Amino acid sequence: MPYFDAASSLPLHPVARQALLAALDEGWADPARLHREGRRARLLLDAAREAAAEAVGCRPDELSFTSSGTRALHIGIAGALAGRRRVGRRLVVSAVEHSAVLHAARAHEADGGVVEEVPVDRTGRVGVDGFGAALRGDTALACLQSANHEVGTEQPVAEVAELCAEAGVPLLVDAAQSLGWGPVAGGWSLLAAGAHKWGGPGGVGLLAVRKGVRFAPPSPADERESGRSPGFADLPAIVAAAASLRAVRAEAADEAARLRALVDRIRARVPELVPDVEVVGDPVRRLPHVVTFSCLYVDGEALLHALDRAGFSVSSGSSCTSDTLTPSHVLRAMGVLSEGNIRVSLPPGTTEEDVDAFLAVLPDAVRRVRAHLDAPAVPPRSGSGPEPVRAAEPAAGPAPEEDAEAPSLTVDSLGKRCPIPVIELAKVIDRVPVGGTVVLLADDEAARLDVPAWCEMRGHEYLGADGHTHRVRRRA
Amino acid sequence: MPYFDAASSLPLHPVARQALLAALDEGWADPARLHREGRRARLLLDAAREAAAEAVGCRPDELSFTSSGTRALHIGIAGALAGRRRVGRRLVVSAVEHSAVLHAARAHEADGGVVEEVPVDRTGRVGVDGFGAALRGDTALACLQSANHEVGTEQPVAEVAELCAEAGVPLLVDAAQSLGWGPVAGGWSLLAAGAHKWGGPGGVGLLAVRKGVRFAPPSPADERESGRSPGFADLPAIVAAAASLRAVRAEAADEAARLRALVDRIRARVPELVPDVEVVGDPVRRLPHVVTFSCLYVDGEALLHALDRAGFSVSSGSSCTSDTLTPSHVLRAMGVLSEGNIRVSLPPGTTEEDVDAFLAVLPDAVRRVRAHLDAPAVPPRSGSGPEPVRAAEPAAGPAPEEDAEAPSLTVDSLGKRCPIPVIELAKVIDRVPVGGTVVLLADDEAARLDVPAWCEMRGHEYLGADGHTHRVRRRA
Repeated sequence: MPYFDAASSLPLHPVARQALLAALDEGWADPARLHREGRRARLLLDAAREAAAEAVGCRPDELSFTSSGTRALHIGIAGALAGRRRVGRRLVVSAVEHSAVLHAARAHEADGGVVEEVPVDRTGRVGVDGFGAALRGDTALACLQSANHEVGTEQPVAEVAELCAEAGVPLLVDAAQSLGWGPVAGGWSLLAAGAHKWGGPGGVGLLAVRKGVRFAPPSPADERESGRSPGFADLPAIVAAAASLRAVRAEAADEAARLRALVDRIRARVPELVPDVEVVGDPVRRLPHVVTFSCLYVDGEALLHALDRAGFSVSSGSSCTSDTLTPSHVLRAMGVLSEGNIRVSLPPGTTEEDVDAFLAVLPDAVRRVRAHLDAPAVPPRSGSGPEPVRAAEPAAGPAPEEDAEAPSLTVDSLGKRCPIPVIELAKVIDRVPVGGTVVLLADDEAARLDVPAWCEMRGHEYLGADGHTHRVRRRA
Repeated sequence: MPYFDAASSLPLHPVARQALLAALDEGWADPARLHREGRRARLLLDAAREAAAEAVGCRPDELSFTSSGTRALHIGIAGALAGRRRVGRRLVVSAVEHSAVLHAARAHEADGGVVEEVPVDRTGRVGVDGFGAALRGDTALACLQSANHEVGTEQPVAEVAELCAEAGVPLLVDAAQSLGWGPVAGGWSLLAAGAHKWGGPGGVGLLAVRKGVRFAPPSPADERESGRSPGFADLPAIVAAAASLRAVRAEAADEAARLRALVDRIRARVPELVPDVEVVGDPVRRLPHVVTFSCLYVDGEALLHALDRAGFSVSSGSSCTSDTLTPSHVLRAMGVLSEGNIRVSLPPGTTEEDVDAFLAVLPDAVRRVRAHLDAPAVPPRSGSGPEPVRAAEPAAGPAPEEDAEAPSLTVDSLGKRCPIPVIELAKVIDRVPVGGTVVLLADDEAARLDVPAWCEMRGHEYLGADGHTHRVRRRA
């Protein structure tokens, strides 16, 4: 039963399991104690730290183990901001960072700090120039992920690190998604990651802070892990995490090449097999194992369950699959379709047969969800193959205000959830003449993203939204 | 090889190991995910939460798993203080709480809050009336441990909880040392503990927050564990922790009775076997498995290593065994001797033979350390058996200022570490006549505690300290 949600969490690597079992007998005592059992535990901890530091590319005394990648980010951001408080209180982050970074940024704002989000392009990649422009004299810290967790796009970390070094701003890299594939290139100052992404156990993260980086560990004080991670850790899990990181690194080059080809296959085949799909993320500068696409007129949760029933575990950034009923902030920042969103992330060992089996069940799963939603028929293809979606031409005609005489029609989708508002819009667009306007009333958060995305896919003109009122002009 | 440091950490309970291994295959996925692997993980997490809640005596939705007992305390204290910020910013704690509580209190002070420490008596027990008097209209939170981690003394939690309820102040109980022995009686509002104290893995804690208690989870936000514990947890470890808690509870009554008798044996025999020993902590209202004593003229670290070489792993609250070279704050708050301090905490399964073997090696170990330090000879016993140390009678004679004519002698122990200043004091006391004064210059932190304690043990009069200058009057 293929599990295609590797970017969320991986099963324990066999080497991690072995290391965990071996460490259970010697790794339960407090490594801070002076007695025999404490010293044995300390030896295990030191060895794990050395192994992890070597894989990260830092000194062992620069690396602290934390209780998760999220905690490593929270501690790293708070500690670096506090350490440079005299410089200023500005925090620069990309708009597509992991929610752990953005939540830490919100906490910084609530505490009186200033946060600047650097936008990304349609592939999810941050602009180097844009990032550099955000660095100012009062910037205390900059954060950039090594690669995006939802769409797989690699970020220009080395280039951004150079700009940060020139500006004297420390750069914290969230390496959660990439550390298993290799060390992060470039002159980062802090680095965070979590072990369950590379086949280690949950409950283990790491935070590296380069010597010379000003860092004030967040309160309360604690004597463990250089004061950076309070509490009695799960040492066997740390040992397993370090062992697993070494093991996946040994396999990384071969496995990356293999999975990259499988992802290329999915990227090429999905738009051929499923009409009205947008494959998102950078097709080349990306993680080897992640591919994400969105399906027009599809309820992401329904598709996820359909795939689950067919034996495939994937994840989704659609609003209907989130607790807050808002689409993924990553898709929002990219400005791409969020409805029917599916992320496929292949674990090491995925076979071509697994992928082909997925490609075999996907079209029917999408078709059934669309039929259940009574989605509009798909327009005939004009070309032979799928074309990348292009941004709509800027409206050349008169401004909407001046077009008040054109025929208009209002659709009330208030209270309806994604993808219903877009489906209702699609069903009526032909009832106004070309140049006419459909006014869509929709209070679902996803509409803000999906109505413009639909307009781009269908070649209509999005005239903008005022509150819950979206205006769309029909084009030929 | 007997391990007598159970109060620090226990080896994994066989049931915990079994549960851990069983959960490795199903507990690695993200329990927040909608797919098959996520749902399986969620089932495990829900079952662990139910089991732990039952053992704690709370509802499952009142219990969050954290990454350690320390984290549970940090989060519990910060969250309760933030939730009641409008009421006031006063935090009441006992003077002998775990350092995790006191560090959180220091962080609260640094943030502008007020902390009041309630003193303890010579057994380490907080006074119910004293605790009640500290509760005021602006008290946001009170913290009291169920039992002390260094000397084993049980605290009057149920009585204090009643006073807290009357005052409308939530009570957070640090149940780290007692939760394996039974639920905490009384109307607590919040409760924290860590699994490695009851034979669960490290890296797992729990925080219970009763419904109706105002609580604002510390930032940054996170969707896991009711927003109270950010990050991807080690689910197999959580499963093992819950299984272990149930298992030790099933054995608790029998094992407590057995260990209680063994500790009684140590409490009785140590003062018979070793001269100049002070056994501390409440002899009756105490944890079943913990006993602590201090040996005059002994370097705690040297004794700890001597016992370690003899095969016994214990811990020490002496200043020489701490990173900060200060004696344990618990011994300080109790006002008892800190030099040569040894805590023996028996794990389940400890046999009478283990204890007798310890009692067989202890006297010689102490004698060797004393000989190495060239400690003064022990005065002949006056009675047949050991007597509890009693506080010196208040000075009946004239105040020191009026006694300036009495012969005086100065000993310079500046720069010397515990127990050297006390040894040097003991060596010269006979060189002044009764009524004469020894002025001891000592900048070691432990001298503040150990010089008065020595005076009490030897029947001399401690005249107080001014900076690093201690004054002792010789009595008969």
